[in-house]
Parts: sequence; C-alpha cells; structure tokens
Amino acid sequence: MLRRNTAPAVAPDSLPRPTMPQRRRVFFISDRTGLTVEALGSSLLTQFADVEFVRTTRPFIDTVEKAREVIAEVNESNHELGTRPLVFSSIVDDAVREEIRKADGQVLDVFERFIVPLEAELGVKSTHAVGKSHSAGNAKDYNHRIEAINYTLSHDDGVTHRQLDEADIILVGVSRSGKTPTCLYMAMQFGIKAANYPLIPEDLEANRLPPSLLPHKHKVWGLSIAPDRLHQIRKERRPDSKYAALENCRYEVSAAEKLMRQTDIPFLDSTTKSIEEIATHMLHEAHLVRRVY
Amino acid sequence: MLRRNTAPAVAPDSLPRPTMPQRRRVFFISDRTGLTVEALGSSLLTQFADVEFVRTTRPFIDTVEKAREVIAEVNESNHELGTRPLVFSSIVDDAVREEIRKADGQVLDVFERFIVPLEAELGVKSTHAVGKSHSAGNAKDYNHRIEAINYTLSHDDGVTHRQLDEADIILVGVSRSGKTPTCLYMAMQFGIKAANYPLIPEDLEANRLPPSLLPHKHKVWGLSIAPDRLHQIRKERRPDSKYAALENCRYEVSAAEKLMRQTDIPFLDSTTKSIEEIATHMLHEAHLVRRVY
Repeated sequence: MLRRNTAPAVAPDSLPRPTMPQRRRVFFISDRTGLTVEALGSSLLTQFADVEFVRTTRPFIDTVEKAREVIAEVNESNHELGTRPLVFSSIVDDAVREEIRKADGQVLDVFERFIVPLEAELGVKSTHAVGKSHSAGNAKDYNHRIEAINYTLSHDDGVTHRQLDEADIILVGVSRSGKTPTCLYMAMQFGIKAANYPLIPEDLEANRLPPSLLPHKHKVWGLSIAPDRLHQIRKERRPDSKYAALENCRYEVSAAEKLMRQTDIPFLDSTTKSIEEIATHMLHEAHLVRRVY
Repeated sequence: MLRRNTAPAVAPDSLPRPTMPQRRRVFFISDRTGLTVEALGSSLLTQFADVEFVRTTRPFIDTVEKAREVIAEVNESNHELGTRPLVFSSIVDDAVREEIRKADGQVLDVFERFIVPLEAELGVKSTHAVGKSHSAGNAKDYNHRIEAINYTLSHDDGVTHRQLDEADIILVGVSRSGKTPTCLYMAMQFGIKAANYPLIPEDLEANRLPPSLLPHKHKVWGLSIAPDRLHQIRKERRPDSKYAALENCRYEVSAAEKLMRQTDIPFLDSTTKSIEEIATHMLHEAHLVRRVY
C-alpha cells in the first residue's frame, strides 16, 4: 500500500502559490472523545486563514477494524477534493496507530510526537494503554463536577441567598453580561462552585451591591460588556423593549461599572472574549483552587 | 545561558530504573487559556501512572516579559525538586516562544511541532498571529452556544413541555443518571439544544414514556447507570431515604431499562463514563449536527 503521508514534506517555498482559495478536508481521529485533538487541530488551523477547512470528527476509534473504516473515508475524500486531507489523530494503541498512518493524507499523530520525548525525559516506558482522561472513571473528580454543577444551577441568577458561604466565587453584572455561561463553565471544567447575581435597576439606582452579597464581598467579581454588544444580545431576546434599547444598555453598563468601582469589585470585560477565556481569567485572577484537572 | 532542554534526549533504556516514585512539576503555558495544552498534556501524562505530577497552568503568556516571569518559576521548581520540570506550551509568537524555550526543563511546544509540517503540507505560511480559538470573537458561534445553554437550562428536568419541537435531542433516565451535566455539556461544547426528562416512578409503573414526549420520540435517547453507582450518588444527597436505597435503585434502573427497550429508545450506560464521553457518544450516535466547532 502507498504510504504517501510518510514521504518527506516539500518545503513551502518550493511550492507554487495557490491563486484560488484552497479547500481541505480535516479529520480528527481519536480512540477516546476526540475533544482534545479537535481543540488542538482547530487552534492550529486558525493560523491558516486563507484555507477553507471541512471538518469531520471520528471518536472512539479503538480497533484496527474501525481504523480501516475511517481510512476508507479519508481516502475517499482525497479522491473527491483532489487535495490530501489533514488527519489529526490521537491513538494510543500501536496497531491502531499503525493502521491510521497508512491513510492517504497528512497524518499528525499527537501521541506519537510527544510520547517518545516524554519517555526519554522520564526514563520510563509509557503504558500504551488507552487511558481515561476527562476525569472519567475518577469518581472523586466526577462527584466534584456534579456537585459544582448542581450548586451553580441552584444559585443561578440570584434565585437564592442561601448557602452563599459555600460559593467559591459570586459573579455580578447586568442581565446578559455572560454570568450564567461563565459560571456553568467554571463548574463543569474546574469543579468551582460559582453563584451569580444580576445587578438589577434597583441596585443600580441605589448604587449598592445586592445586600445579601455584602457578607461575601471578598469573593464577588464582576462582568461588564460593551453597551452595543449588550444591545445586540438583548434585542434578540426582546426586540423593541426598553430593556434592549441601546440607550438603556448604555445607562445600565455605565451605572454597573460605577457601582463596581465604588464598591471595589474587580470586573472583567466579556465583550470580545469566549466563555473559556472569561472563565480562565476569573479562575486565575481570583486565585481560585480548582477541584478538577 | 544554558539551554538544557535542547540537548539530545537520553534513551530510556540507558537510564537506571527509578526505585522511588518520581515526582515531576508540570507547567502548562499558553498565550491563550491553556485549556487545550492542559487537556493534551494531561491525556499524555495518564500514560505514566507511576510518576506523580504536580501541575501548574499559566495562561495568557503573550509577552516576552510574562514569559520571563514564568521561566523564573519553572527554573525555581527545578532547583527545588531536583528533577527537570515538563513544560507543555502553546505559544504562537516567535519571540515569546524563543523565550520559553530557554526554560530549564523539557519544553514541548505544540505550536512548533505541528505548524512546520502543516505549512509544508498546505504550501502557505501561517500567520503566526495569536488567534482566537474557543469560538471567541466569533459572534455567531457565541450566540449559538448561549442560545443552546438557555434552551437547555429552561428544559432541564422536565420543567416544561413547551418548545420541545426545537430540541435537537431529549434525554430520559432515572433521577441522577447524568442527564443534566450531559445536556449542559452538549449545549456548551457543541451548541446542541438538549432537553431532559426524568423517568419518575409513575412512568416506570405505567411502563410508558412521559406522554408529552411521544410526538418527539424520534429524538429521545436514554441514559442508564449501574444500580450501585446510582445508590452511591443518591446517598450523598439524601442519605437514609427510600429514594437512595440500593433496593429502590435496582428497581428503578431495571424498570427504566425495560421501558426504554420496549419503547425502542436507544440508551447508553453512563456508569464508567465522563461527562465528555457521554456527550460525545450521544452526539455521534444520534447523528446530531453541531453548531459550534
């Protein structure tokens, strides 16, 4: 069988510059969920803005037979588009990885590229057993995550003042500034108990924190957002409302920021950030101790 | 300056086998959130079960100055433990990466190891600009995620029968079988609108699906769980209740599985799976179209 992917790569400068935008199929293949290799590959592909990538993920490829099926798919896409697919893979089992390597595409196997230098550095052989990642099977981690998710769900949007002493962090901000997704992400990913409280017009007029938060002020953090982005977000939910009006968004954001400054609540602008970025910033700036790795 | 990490690695077989369990500091360094490089590194480290790893994540390292601070920390840990730290990094900027490479540890830079072969394969130079991943700044993706999270929150635990036609998937299962975290994960990660309905004792006795789900049966999927694991989980929330009793857990699981088999609802056992694994299985087995990559 031809193994084109193991042929020496041609240096970029010796290739003709493409005049049409390139299209490439990309496969993410994993013996587990594929989430890590997908995240890795996607972050690398953002470096090639002029190429159009068409993505396919094939998780749980843990036998030679399944590997052969995926390879057939990869090779077919090769014939269709006329360009070699990219194959990001993460396969622990040697026989399965050997099979994937035969694909008629550029195979970039994460396991292969990192495990050899790690073995050398640590002076031990790796187990080469398909392991558990994502806290799977680890009952303690699972319990921490579930406990944090339950806590966060029952302390969303200021629904209760009870058990706030258990919170690791309490987020405040105007409605739709990103509190709920940030809290859920922190609970899910880090096992952090994250409560959130909206800053409602009464709080803004009185220029004070919701009174039930005062005993917990040391763990209150704020989110802010650009008024025009807030206007866009609110408009989708309640078009033509005073709530969504740009003027009102401007007022609320400005009053909330004033309140947070005066009460010494540090806050972060969520406007151009992803949920992951906001959650990571909060984790590190508030020096929270994560319960799950 | 010494650059020990660029010295040729010693082959594992030439090293004496350690008799004491090894301890190693591990740093995850990124110019963004570090979540990807953390996931990658953690999954590789599961291959070395006999080594104890002590982890530190340093996100948003995007200037040479910040890189120098991190390196100081890496080098200090080297002197403390007497073993070279592992440094998993993902740094796009050449000057910052060059700085990280000087650390007195084994530096494994993801960007460096993959971007060169990708450039060769695609025949274009990468932008080398710190990009946006995790759907950041991409308003369409952000909106899909928020919309899915809101939908999932408002359709958790059977709280409403309304708008079930909008659901991409509806999960059923006994209380505490993992429905809520799975749905939230699908919403957050894939932009999937996931509703969930508990199978309550009335449903189990009548041996039928909750009637409001019948028009949507084609998108109903089930979760099951081992009775003793369910017993453990329920016991933590309501010790000494009939709800948590092992006997009752056995009855509920068995009745729920019977119900799902008879009504042709495919189901997955969540017992030994992480939230990520359950969500990924569901996505692929139900052939759901993700809205977010």
